[in-house]
Parts: sequence; structure tokens; C-alpha cells
Amino acid sequence: MKHFLHVNDIDSSASWLSLAAECKKEPFKYEKLGKGKVLGLLFFNNSLRTRLSTQKAAYHLGMHCMIMNIGSEGWALEFEDGTIMDQGKAEHIKEAAQVISQYCDVLGVRAFASLEDKEKDEAEQVLNGFKKYAGIPVLNMESATGHPLQALADLITITEHQQTKRPKVVLSWAPHPRALPQAVANSFTSIMRNNPQFDFCVTHPRGYELNPEIIGDSPVYHDQNEALKDADFVYVKNWSASNPYGAVLNNDPHWMITPEKLGKAYFMHCLPVRRNVIVEDAVLDGNNSLVIEQANNRTYAAQAALIKILESL
Amino acid sequence: MKHFLHVNDIDSSASWLSLAAECKKEPFKYEKLGKGKVLGLLFFNNSLRTRLSTQKAAYHLGMHCMIMNIGSEGWALEFEDGTIMDQGKAEHIKEAAQVISQYCDVLGVRAFASLEDKEKDEAEQVLNGFKKYAGIPVLNMESATGHPLQALADLITITEHQQTKRPKVVLSWAPHPRALPQAVANSFTSIMRNNPQFDFCVTHPRGYELNPEIIGDSPVYHDQNEALKDADFVYVKNWSASNPYGAVLNNDPHWMITPEKLGKAYFMHCLPVRRNVIVEDAVLDGNNSLVIEQANNRTYAAQAALIKILESL
Amino acid sequence: MKHFLHVNDIDSSASWLSLAAECKKEPFKYEKLGKGKVLGLLFFNNSLRTRLSTQKAAYHLGMHCMIMNIGSEGWALEFEDGTIMDQGKAEHIKEAAQVISQYCDVLGVRAFASLEDKEKDEAEQVLNGFKKYAGIPVLNMESATGHPLQALADLITITEHQQTKRPKVVLSWAPHPRALPQAVANSFTSIMRNNPQFDFCVTHPRGYELNPEIIGDSPVYHDQNEALKDADFVYVKNWSASNPYGAVLNNDPHWMITPEKLGKAYFMHCLPVRRNVIVEDAVLDGNNSLVIEQANNRTYAAQAALIKILESL
Repeated sequence: MKHFLHVNDIDSSASWLSLAAECKKEPFKYEKLGKGKVLGLLFFNNSLRTRLSTQKAAYHLGMHCMIMNIGSEGWALEFEDGTIMDQGKAEHIKEAAQVISQYCDVLGVRAFASLEDKEKDEAEQVLNGFKKYAGIPVLNMESATGHPLQALADLITITEHQQTKRPKVVLSWAPHPRALPQAVANSFTSIMRNNPQFDFCVTHPRGYELNPEIIGDSPVYHDQNEALKDADFVYVKNWSASNPYGAVLNNDPHWMITPEKLGKAYFMHCLPVRRNVIVEDAVLDGNNSLVIEQANNRTYAAQAALIKILESL
Repeated sequence: MKHFLHVNDIDSSASWLSLAAECKKEPFKYEKLGKGKVLGLLFFNNSLRTRLSTQKAAYHLGMHCMIMNIGSEGWALEFEDGTIMDQGKAEHIKEAAQVISQYCDVLGVRAFASLEDKEKDEAEQVLNGFKKYAGIPVLNMESATGHPLQALADLITITEHQQTKRPKVVLSWAPHPRALPQAVANSFTSIMRNNPQFDFCVTHPRGYELNPEIIGDSPVYHDQNEALKDADFVYVKNWSASNPYGAVLNNDPHWMITPEKLGKAYFMHCLPVRRNVIVEDAVLDGNNSLVIEQANNRTYAAQAALIKILESL
Repeated sequence: MKHFLHVNDIDSSASWLSLAAECKKEPFKYEKLGKGKVLGLLFFNNSLRTRLSTQKAAYHLGMHCMIMNIGSEGWALEFEDGTIMDQGKAEHIKEAAQVISQYCDVLGVRAFASLEDKEKDEAEQVLNGFKKYAGIPVLNMESATGHPLQALADLITITEHQQTKRPKVVLSWAPHPRALPQAVANSFTSIMRNNPQFDFCVTHPRGYELNPEIIGDSPVYHDQNEALKDADFVYVKNWSASNPYGAVLNNDPHWMITPEKLGKAYFMHCLPVRRNVIVEDAVLDGNNSLVIEQANNRTYAAQAALIKILESL
């Protein structure tokens, strides 16, 4: 039984990329693999791409989907052990996970970072709660610290568009009015760094340091222009600060991506994107934007992950 | 590629009516037409009949449905061009529509009139936003100014029950405690007027004028009794005023439909209906009410529209 | 046409238990029975087990599910006859039920007790409204006074685990911070009492008397220890008082179930359960807890009920 919780669960980039390409070419090729199998999708947070692309992937694989907005349709869950549950939480993760896993063969979970309790977020309380108690494979549909389906879709997209053997890929922070999780930046960094096929670096204002264990020895620039020089792919994303955890320290519009900054590089973003805050209209409406294709590849990323899971059952 | 946005998209009443009748007789006849096709249903507003009948129609056609309450489950959308998106809207229609259309083959959209901004409502900002950017056929599940699936179901229902060659059909305003859109009245008027098979007129209090371009030369009465004389079908519906736009100017209970007013005519309403406000219990509970059958025909109206769309892919 | 509204609709325990066992052994055995049939699921209240297990059962039977959270996705319903509907309720049960039943072959309804109006709750205003006007079989997914799918799953679970010919089964009240309905306690009592295969009794604090018509001549103890003596199965559940209706009169933690109180008996609860309020962690985490298996059996209880309904169409 295999989970898909982290980009490290992609045991071989080459094999997963080729599987995704196969699905993109012939979406219903593995239609029989999921026959009679139920995919439960639990949403603790809103979703558009993840919700639809994962459903679509399951449909291509012949799986039956059951979807729940667990907060509004089910019960508020308790994650702490030993609590006297006399407050707002009606059900413990121990029961919820064991029960739900009896109705499903695979369980997708989306649960964003709280951005309030760094320790719990980094412990992946919700995702790991389901992993621990569910007894069936768990699919990460964006958790507190990672969004591996997005990172896999991003890798597919870069591979489809790269024109050099070892393209330069830059992850750039950009401003945003609200505090956002670091999940997308983390997973993109994890999938890029140490991959000898990419010349990867990160740029962000001081105070926005990502987790050092994730960044590793990836070059980090505080001067965006320096980082963007000769870039082939510019992946743009806001995230909130790590100290104080979840804070918005900077809204400097100079970090917004413009056509001038982008140059000939491809523009990437996981979406939803705030136009003229994260990036100028001209970039999104131009020919160098890959954001729509990234979203398209979410279907095939999910399909590859589900195939690997189904084959492990 | 064909959209179904407006009753004018019904290129031939006769052919669409015969297709709907065929589906009503043998619902699964076109079951193979939608095989492998995905119908996305986006709800910006609540829905009962439209939600269920469109799903049912898709099921009859072998299509796979993916449903989203986009407001509560996805992201708030921005529709203006050039905005600096630093407020409440997280995603622009340009991205949302392009992205969603990659996951679907046909896209149903329900987005009511705001009743606050007449210009934007008449420009059909939401529906046309999806039409412009989606790149796949769009199905109107009630928009700011029209509800063509309802009008088609109404036409089917009248055709099934008419006992004369050219029945008299009256659209009558009725009171309602809240301000309601003009969509249903507009589409019903559009499908009736200029159709030589119907003797069509409208009645409403002064101040409730419908869009002159939609009304055309249809007779309009401010005296309900005069309009209802010798009617064969009485279609009742509240709508709010056009000036001031969206206002409730009149709650006069004398406009409520009673058995006496109805006489031998059939009673029609799109539902939901406020009993003893729009119409007396005795009418709805009597033999002349067609409201349940109208709702039933929503399935076959949707099925006809989806078949025409699927055949155009 | 058969409804499944009450445990009394289980015409023969033996036959239903054997049908459920058959489905548990071979879930897709009756896959063709529901082909082309639509199951509508209407939720007036939140749900996790019922929502997922009923969907799963329908999937096993080849039925197509259409699910609505009627409060948040549809319209607020009026249940009183003769009302002037000029307030918050947009649609009458008469229209809603007739309309929905045209789109479905079977209709599941979940509508909890209000705990405010005992008379309306006992009249099962919502469930019986649908029964009266729907014209198709109605499946009770927990109503104001009963939860027969839960009781059937409980009966399956006891039968699977009983080690004596006539086990002692105790229904024990336990404390809870909020006022809860009596539905689960009612249906469990109804399915146990007068069944000569079980030695059944009830225990609760004074003031928590269940409906005398439901309790019948079942022994009732106000001393929990006396009731639990030599028990084989201890079914624990909170419910609110009947006088004043819906009140929380007692939160005495001495009524919480502990491993000492349970002894060698099996522990049962319908879930969700408040840990360390209703029952100590050690019981739920121990080997005598059947709560996860009860939830699993919800699928086969629903499957048995749907098979009986489908066979009656």
C-alpha cells in the first residue's frame, strides 16, 4: 500500500513523467484499473483545480468519487489525544479516519496550514492523522506544508516546455494581501532542488525564509533581478513569513512580476493568481504564461499518482 | 461548437420539441452520445430543479457530472479587466474559465442578476465571461437576464396541453415579498412572442415594464382581468421593477391568482412558488395546475439542449 | 412500493440480516438491480457515515446518486398547510416533494428533530411530508424520532458478535454538552425490545424517560451499575430530556462509560462520539469496542434497505 503525501513519494521522476504523458495522450487507457474502487475526497478547505482535476483523473481511471466538504457537511474534528471533548469538536480523527476508510479504497485529503501553530502545521496534524488511522492509501490534495500534486504537474509542464538540457528555474516570492501557506513553494522547491536536470534558485525578501531542511543548499537571493537573470522558467508564488509564523511582513509591489522582469522566460503559477498584485496582466495574457497548461496537467499528475496507488493495493 | 445561452439558440422549435418528446418517451435512447464526456455545473446561486434535472439529463445521456458551488467551495471571482486584485476576489474569470474548461466538455453556469447594477446584469457579465474564455460550449442554467432551459420546458408543457390551434397565453406579474430577477419572464416572453402559434400578451402593474427589446410588440395590459379574459394558459411570475432597477414597487395582493381569475385556463409557474402570495392554494392543488409537469419537463429540455451541444462538438 | 421509514419496515429480521450478510460478502452481487435508477439524497442536517455509506450502498447496487444539502444549496421549505408564504420560506413541501420525486426513483431524507416543538417532531413533519407528497419510496436517513438504518446496522453488528443465544443488551444514557435528539435511542430500543433473542434493558437518569410507547415494557433502571451487570453489549448514547422537551438536565460525568463499568461487554455507539465525555479513551481504543464495525455495517444496512425498496418498484 502506497501513500502519496510528499514529492518524495515520486520514486522515479522519469517513470512518473512517462506515466503522466501516457495518460495525457490516452486519458481512458487505465479505465479498468479503478473499476469498483471508491476515491473519497475530503475538503477541509476550498478548492477549484484540485477538486475538479482529481475528480477528472478518477473518472478517467474508472473510479467512483465520493466528495465531502467535511467542515460544512460533516463534523468538526478533534486531533489531540486524551482531550475531554466537551467543546466544539464532535468527532475524533481516530474514529473519523477509521470509519471513512471503510467506505473508500483511496482517500484524498485537503487541509491547509493554520498559519497559527507552526508546530502543528509542520507536524501535518490533519494529513498524518488520516495516514495514521485510515488504513488505506492517502492522497495529499494540499496539506499544511506541501502540495505534491501541484509540484508534479509543474514538473510535467517544465519538462514539456524546456528547450535546453538544464534550464534555469527560479522560484520567486511575490506580494499578496493575505497570509498564504508555504505548501506550494515547499513542494516546488523539493521537486527541483537536488535534481541535476535543473539549475534551481529561490528569491524572496528578507524574513520570508523557507524551511532550511527544504531549501537545502539551493541558492537564495534577496535581489530578485539578480535571481531572474537568464531564467528559463520563473515560478511565482506568495507565501507568508516563517518568523513570526504566518505574518505578512512585506507588500512591496516592486516584487510583482512584469514582462520586463520575465524577459524570455516562461511564467508559472499554481493559481488562483491575483492579477496586478502577483503579476501584471501583460504576463498572464502573453505567450510566455504556462499557468493554464499547469492546471491542465493537474489531471495527469493526479492520474499518475492514483495509478501508482491503485497498483499498490 | 454550439452554446445554449438564450432561447434564440433554439434554431427550430419543432425539431427541439420533437427531440425532447423522444427523450421523454425513451430517456436513455441517447445514452451513448455523452460517453466519456464531462459536464461541469457551476452554481453561483442556489438551485433545486435546475441542479437535479440537469444532472438527470446528463445521466440519461451517459455524461459524467462534476458539480461546484463556486462561491462556497471555490474562490470568489473577479470579472473586471485591469483590476489590481488586492481585495476580496481571489481569481479572475480569465483563468477560472480557461482552467475549468480543460476539465470539462460542456459547462453549465447559473448566475442570477445582482439587481444592483443593471448595466452589468444586462451585459451578462458572468455568463458571457465564461462564454468568452471557456473555449467549450456553455449551457445557461439561469443567468442575469434569461432562463432558456425553463422557457423550453414551458414550451414543451404548453404544447403537450394545448387544445386549440392557437392558444391564448398570458404572462402575468404577481406580488412577492422579495426583489426577484426578470430572467424567467424575459425568456418566456422571448419564446412566445413572434411565435405565430400563440396569442401572447403580458400583464403587470405600471412600473414593472420588461425590457422593450424583449417585449417587442407583444400586447401589454395593466388591467390583469382584461388580460386574463379567455386565456388558455396563465403563466404567473414575479419580477422586480426596472426603474429603479431591482425595486419592489408593488405588493398589491389583488394581483395574486385565484381560481376565479384563472377560470378554465391552465396555471403555470417555474417554481419555487410562494403559496397564497403569488397564487392561492386552490389553484396549485387543483386540476388546472401544470407546475409539476413543467418541472418534469426541465429534464427533457436539458436533455435536448445537451444533445444539440454534444452533436456540435 | 415500499418505504423504509421505521424499524417496523423490517418485515423479517432474519431475511434482512441474511441479505445484509450476503451484500457484505459480495458487495456487487446486486449491481444490476439498480441500473438506470436514481437515488436522491436530501440533507437537512450534517452527516458523515450516513452520507458516505448510503452513497456506497447505492454504488454497489448500480444506482446513480444525486445529493443535495437542501438548506444551503436549495430553498427553505414550508411545511404548514394554508400559510401565506410571505416570510423566509421560498417553497412548499407539496411542490418540492412532487418535483424532486420526478427526478428520482428513491428518495433518502435526513431531517433531525428540532428539539423545540415536540408535537411537530413526533409528527415527523419533514419525513412524512416527503412520504405524503413524493410518490416514490422514501428512505429514512435519520428523522426526528428514528434512525432505522443505524438500528439495522447495530442489529447486524450484535448478531455478528454475540456469543450466547440470548445476550444481555443494555442501552445506557451518557452525558453530552449539547442537546441531542432521541432518534438513535428510539430506533435501537424499537429493534431490541420484544425481540425474544435479546435480554434488553435501558438505563438513564431520572428525567430522561424515552417515549413510553417506544419503551413498552422494557426494564428501565436509574442505577447504571445495576443495569450494566452481566451485560454482553452496552450501547451508549446521549439524548436530551423529554420534559422540558430538548433540555439538558444532567451532565453528571459518573454516567460516562469506563473500562471498569464495561467489564467484558462489547461497547457500541453510533458515532460521532465525544471521547472522555460519553466514554473513556481506553474503551474506544480497547478490543471491546464495536463502533468502527457498526459504521462499516451501515453500508450493508443501507444496501439491504435499498434492495428491498428496489424490488418493490
